[in-house]
Amino acid sequence: MVAPLKVGIAGLGTVGAEVVRVIERQAATLTARCGRPIKVVAVTARSKAKKRGLDLRGIDWAKSPLAIATDPNVDCFVELIGGAGDPAGPAIEAALAAGKSVVTANKALIAKHGLKLAALAEKHGGALNYEAAVGAAIPVIKTLREGLAGTGIDRIYGILNGTCNYILTRMEQEGLSFEACLADAQRLGYAEADPTFDIDGHDTAQKLSILASLAFGTKVSESAVYVEGIRSITPEDLRAADDLGYRVKLLGVAVRTAKGIEQRVHPTMVPKTSSIAQVMGVTNAVTIDGQGIPPITLVGAGAGAAATASAVVADIADVARGIRAEPFGRPVAGLKAISKAPMERHEGGYYLRMLARDHAGTAATIATRLAEQDISIESIVQRQPDRGDGKAKSGPVPVILITYATSEDAVRRALKAVQADKVISGRPQVIRIEKN
Amino acid sequence: MVAPLKVGIAGLGTVGAEVVRVIERQAATLTARCGRPIKVVAVTARSKAKKRGLDLRGIDWAKSPLAIATDPNVDCFVELIGGAGDPAGPAIEAALAAGKSVVTANKALIAKHGLKLAALAEKHGGALNYEAAVGAAIPVIKTLREGLAGTGIDRIYGILNGTCNYILTRMEQEGLSFEACLADAQRLGYAEADPTFDIDGHDTAQKLSILASLAFGTKVSESAVYVEGIRSITPEDLRAADDLGYRVKLLGVAVRTAKGIEQRVHPTMVPKTSSIAQVMGVTNAVTIDGQGIPPITLVGAGAGAAATASAVVADIADVARGIRAEPFGRPVAGLKAISKAPMERHEGGYYLRMLARDHAGTAATIATRLAEQDISIESIVQRQPDRGDGKAKSGPVPVILITYATSEDAVRRALKAVQADKVISGRPQVIRIEKN
Repeated sequence: MVAPLKVGIAGLGTVGAEVVRVIERQAATLTARCGRPIKVVAVTARSKAKKRGLDLRGIDWAKSPLAIATDPNVDCFVELIGGAGDPAGPAIEAALAAGKSVVTANKALIAKHGLKLAALAEKHGGALNYEAAVGAAIPVIKTLREGLAGTGIDRIYGILNGTCNYILTRMEQEGLSFEACLADAQRLGYAEADPTFDIDGHDTAQKLSILASLAFGTKVSESAVYVEGIRSITPEDLRAADDLGYRVKLLGVAVRTAKGIEQRVHPTMVPKTSSIAQVMGVTNAVTIDGQGIPPITLVGAGAGAAATASAVVADIADVARGIRAEPFGRPVAGLKAISKAPMERHEGGYYLRMLARDHAGTAATIATRLAEQDISIESIVQRQPDRGDGKAKSGPVPVILITYATSEDAVRRALKAVQADKVISGRPQVIRIEKN
Repeated sequence: MVAPLKVGIAGLGTVGAEVVRVIERQAATLTARCGRPIKVVAVTARSKAKKRGLDLRGIDWAKSPLAIATDPNVDCFVELIGGAGDPAGPAIEAALAAGKSVVTANKALIAKHGLKLAALAEKHGGALNYEAAVGAAIPVIKTLREGLAGTGIDRIYGILNGTCNYILTRMEQEGLSFEACLADAQRLGYAEADPTFDIDGHDTAQKLSILASLAFGTKVSESAVYVEGIRSITPEDLRAADDLGYRVKLLGVAVRTAKGIEQRVHPTMVPKTSSIAQVMGVTNAVTIDGQGIPPITLVGAGAGAAATASAVVADIADVARGIRAEPFGRPVAGLKAISKAPMERHEGGYYLRMLARDHAGTAATIATRLAEQDISIESIVQRQPDRGDGKAKSGPVPVILITYATSEDAVRRALKAVQADKVISGRPQVIRIEKN
C-alpha cells in the first residue's frame, strides 16, 4: 500500500466541514483515482465546541492554522479560513516554506498575495492549488493552466459574481428596481449586509485578475482592472437591451489588444444568442476565446459549500496523484507587469440612453454630435414612455442608441457636446457592448 | 536547461499539420509552462510529397508510424492517423510497451481498445492522453479525470455530434426536412458521404462510453449503449417541442439509476431553458451532474483542426510537465463491467405524437389507454394542421402528448393498445424527455 496523503485542514465552516465529509464519503474512489488514500490527520477552527455533524475521532485538533501548516505529519495544508491577511496568509506561507503543498479557496488572498505565494511554491516544490477561488466547481483554473496550455488566448470573459447576476436577472425578468432586487438578495442570503464588494464589481475584479494571469501570463493585479458596478443599471436599460437583442450582465473581460492586455469589469450588453447571455440567477460562466478556435464556455455554480468543496477535494487529489503545475501556469519570474487599461482608448460598440427634453430635433442633434466624432449608429429608438394606462406620458422622451465599434474617447466627447447643447436632461447612460 | 520532450507525430492531415504549427508558434509559452521545450523530432504520413505548408527541416521523416513508436529518440508518440485498426492501434501498443507516453485524438480506437491500451500504459508507466477524442478542445476528459476527482457523479449528458446538432438546428429554425438538412450538411462538409455513423448515433455512443467510464468507473463498452439516431425526427416534432417549451437534441446520456448505470443515445426533448438547449449548429456541449452540486456545462466546438490540435498540444504539454493520471481515471482492474440498459425499464417523461384518424373521441381513447398503464398526462394538444392558406386541412389530426415520468414498458403497452384500437394512422412518434 502506498503511503496516504496526510491532509490538515484549517477552517471548518460550511466548506471545510463538507471537505471532511467528501474525503470520508469518497474514500474508495479517491484511493482508486489517486493510487493512494487521502487521510485527514489534523483540523482546526475558531471554535472546537461548535456542532458540525462531523466525526473527528482520530483526527488531531491543532491549536492554530500555523500549527497545522508546520506539522511534520501533514503533507498538504488546506486553508479554508478566508481573508487576505492573518491567519490565512502566514499559515500558507509557512506551509509552502516547509515544502508542503497548499490547497485554498481564498480568492482575496490569491488576488492580493498570489505572486509571493507562487514564488514560495516554486522555490520549495510544493503545489499551490486554488481551483475553488474562481467559479467554485467550474474547472476554469485547470482549463487555463493545463487544458489550454498550448493555445494562445485572445480574450476571456465571464459572469464571475452570482450576486450581481441574480440581481440583474430578477430586474430583467420582473422589471424591478436595483434597490428592490438587492434587498431581496440580502434577505435570501445571496448578498452581504454590506454588498459593496460584490455589486461594485470588486469581487469580479479579483477573480478576473487571477484568470487574466493564467490566460495571458500577466502578473495578478487587481489595481490594473478598470471597475464599474451595477448600481446605475435601471429596468429601462434592461427592457431596451431586450428590444435590441441584448442582455445586460456584469462581465469581467480580459482581452488582448494592440495596446496590451485590457482588464475591465463593467455592466455589459451581450447578444441574447450568446452562451453567456443564457446564464441566469446565481450561476457563473466563463468564455475563453482561444486563437483560431471557437469559444469555449464553462457554466456552473459559482459558490455554495458542495460546489466549493468539490473543487477543493479535486485540488487535494491532484496533490495526492503528484499532478503539479506552476500556480499561475508558468514561473512567477516570467509573468509580465500589467498596467491599468486606459478606458478612454477602449474600442467597442456602445449603448447610450438619454432623456430628450424636446422630442422634435433632439435625435437629429444627438446624431450630428456622434457623426462629428465619426461614430456610426447601428440603431436608434425614441421610446415614448407608457403611463401605465396605455397612453403616452408627457415629459422627457428616452432616446436609445446602439453604436458600431468606436473609441470610448469619441463617445465621451460626443456626449459632452450633446450635454452642452442642453437638449437632454440628466446624465446619459452608457453601457459597453461585448460581441461574441 | 532541462531536456526537451521529444515528440514523434504519425499522421499529418489537417490536425497533425496544425499540431506541428502550434508547437512551433507557441514554443516560448510551452517552454515556460512546462519547464522544458517541446520538440517535434520525427513525423510520418502516407505521402511525403504532399504540400502541407510545413517547415519540416531538421525533423526526421520516419518510414512508418511503428518506426516512430519504437524510436528510442522519441519520448511521446502522437497518433493522428485515425481508425480503430492498423496502423494506429499496433503503433500505440508498441509505443506504450516501450514505456513512452501516447497522445491521440482517436475516439474509435479508445472506444474499442481503450481498456487494453490503458492497461499497457499502467504497466509501463507512460501516459495515455486523448482529450481531443471527445469534444475536441472542450476539456471534458480532464474535467472528469481530474477536475471532479472527488465528486460522485449522478449523470452526464451531452450533444457530442456536431453533424446531428447542425441538422436538428436547421430543421428547427427553417422548418426543413431531415433529408434536406442532411444534403446541405453533406454539401458543406459537416456530414460524410455515408452519414450513418453520425446520424444513427454511433459516433455519440462511442464518445458517451468513454465519458461514462471516466464518470462512473465503468468499462468502456460501446455495445452497452442503447442507440437511436435522428432519421425519424420531423419538422412537426420540432414545432410541437417548441410549442411545449422544449427543443429536440441528439443526446448521449449516462445516468446512475437504482438498477445500475444506464447509457443511451437518442433524440431527446430538453427544456428550452436548459444550457444544453441553447447549443446550436455544430457546437458540442456536455453537462455533468455532480452529487449535491448544481450542473456544470462545458460548451465549445466538437471538431475542427485548430480545436482538435489545441487539445492534442495540451495533452503533450501534460506529458512534458509530468502530469499523469490513469487513462480512465483509475486502474483498469478496478473498472466495473456494464451491461446494456434494458430500455423497457427506462423511466422518464415522454413526448408522443400520433395521427388521429377521427378527430372526435380519439384523444379520449388515447387518454384511457395511458390511464390503464398508470401514465399521467402533463399536457395534450390536438393540432389541426394548416393547409398553408390559414384553413384547416382535412384528414388525420395530430395528437401530441407529454407524459409525466413513467416506465418505457408502460408507454409501449399503452401505444400497442391504442394501435389495436385502430384510432390512429401510422406509427406513433416517441421521444424521451430529459429534465435538467
